[in-house]
This record gives sequence, structure tokens and C-alpha cells, in this order.
Amino acid sequence: MAILALDDQDRVLMVRQWRVAAGQALLEIPAGTLDVADDGSIEDPDLAARRELEEETGMRAGSWRLLTRFYTAPGFTSELMHLYLATDLRLADGHRLGPDEDEHLLLERLPWEDVLAAAERGEVADAKSLVGLLWLDRFRSG
Amino acid sequence: MAILALDDQDRVLMVRQWRVAAGQALLEIPAGTLDVADDGSIEDPDLAARRELEEETGMRAGSWRLLTRFYTAPGFTSELMHLYLATDLRLADGHRLGPDEDEHLLLERLPWEDVLAAAERGEVADAKSLVGLLWLDRFRSG
Repeated sequence: MAILALDDQDRVLMVRQWRVAAGQALLEIPAGTLDVADDGSIEDPDLAARRELEEETGMRAGSWRLLTRFYTAPGFTSELMHLYLATDLRLADGHRLGPDEDEHLLLERLPWEDVLAAAERGEVADAKSLVGLLWLDRFRSG
Repeated sequence: MAILALDDQDRVLMVRQWRVAAGQALLEIPAGTLDVADDGSIEDPDLAARRELEEETGMRAGSWRLLTRFYTAPGFTSELMHLYLATDLRLADGHRLGPDEDEHLLLERLPWEDVLAAAERGEVADAKSLVGLLWLDRFRSG
């Protein structure tokens, strides 16, 4: 799942992390994969999104909305990405702003128009983040 | 690479193909991977885009523009997708409109706003196509 998290100043919570496959640090929206339990059951995406946002940013959202679902790369994986909009953000109990210590990433809060400009310059360069940002940009009123 | 191909009536060339990983047919923009030659050299993305457009649609473009490049899924693959805008379309010599016989897909030409509406309804559901459509929607004037 992937999470477009907007604070009350219309800033987007972005995480910067080293990507081995890309050979560089990328600026992305918070995201993760669904946990698989010992009995083989797959984590609920709604719950996973809440867990992931807290782990990567230290924040909880008062409002959650599933924007859409899409296949990341249907030519070679069945991964179906759930894209959420999270608003009404507040610091989670017992957390500080930022990722958990075992998360190797940096949190950045960027104004909406700055993030779109960064995307246009190629500085947000992964598919799920681009879908998330551009989706909200086009369908925000929907 | 992936190709946003627009004809002179502002229709988008889309291909519908069965995706095993998704368990359904998906409506996507023409796309493909880069060929690797016997000597290990990788096909030039500019040339690959021209080849792929012709194979999947029977069309050639008089105008090509690289819109952006992005990682499809940097968590697990180094695939860097080159996204092109192709315009000034015409039927390739010796081709009919539509895919080559060995391409298992259907060509559809859809008005721009219809494609965006289909995306909003979840009927265009793969990351590269959504990036392509939403990118042009936002940055068309750029």
C-alpha cells in the first residue's frame, strides 16, 4: 500500500530512502508491503496503511480514504497497490515526528506545489509516488 | 519504455491485453522492455519506443518527446521506465492499424477525457499507464 499524507498546511509527508535497485536515494510517499502471518493470511491493507504511516513518519491520521488500486508492474508481478489519502494528521502516542529507529529513511514535509514541481523535474521518480501525487492533483475534488 | 501516443483528434492509443499476474485483461498504454543483444548490449530506449509503437499499433510517429523517466518498483527492480509522448501519427508502411499478429492484444483509440474518466473509475489500473496519462494531464503545457 502507499499513502498520500497531507497535513493541515497542505504539506505532503515524503520519505527519502536509499534504493539499492536504483543505486540512489529516492524521494517517495510512505509505502510498504502487506505482512503475511504464519498461517498464510495476508494483512488487511487498511490496517497495513495505518501501521506503515506510523512506522515511517510517527504520525496517525484521523481521516483515511482509499483513492484507488493499481498494479505496480502487471507484466511481472501481481502486486496490487492500494493508494490511500490520509489527512487530519497528529503525532502518534509515544512517538516523535519521524521514522522508527529501524526504518532507514528520512522524513520530509514538503508543500504541495513544491512536490509537484520536484516530480516535474524528475526528482520524484518512482511510479507509485507519481501516481499518488498526480492522482490527487487531478481528482482532488472527486 | 512506455508510449503515450495521441492522434490528431486527441485520442489516446491504448492496448488491451490479458495479464496473467493480474488475472484479467488490462487497458494500458503501449509499452515494452528493452531488447538485450547477444553481446549483452541493451537496446536504445528511443529506438525501442519506435519499434514497440509500430508492433503494438501499426503506427509511426512524426514527433517524439521523452516526458520523464521513473522506476516502476524500486523496492525490488531496477527497471527504469522511459515515458514518451508520440504525436503526428501515421500508419507505418506495409502495416494495417492494429498490433502485429504475434502481439496478443487489442488496440483501442479513446478520446482523452474518456481515458481520464476510465482511470478515475479504476479501469486503467497499471502504474505506468496512470503515470503517463496523469503526467500529460498535469504537465501538458510544459
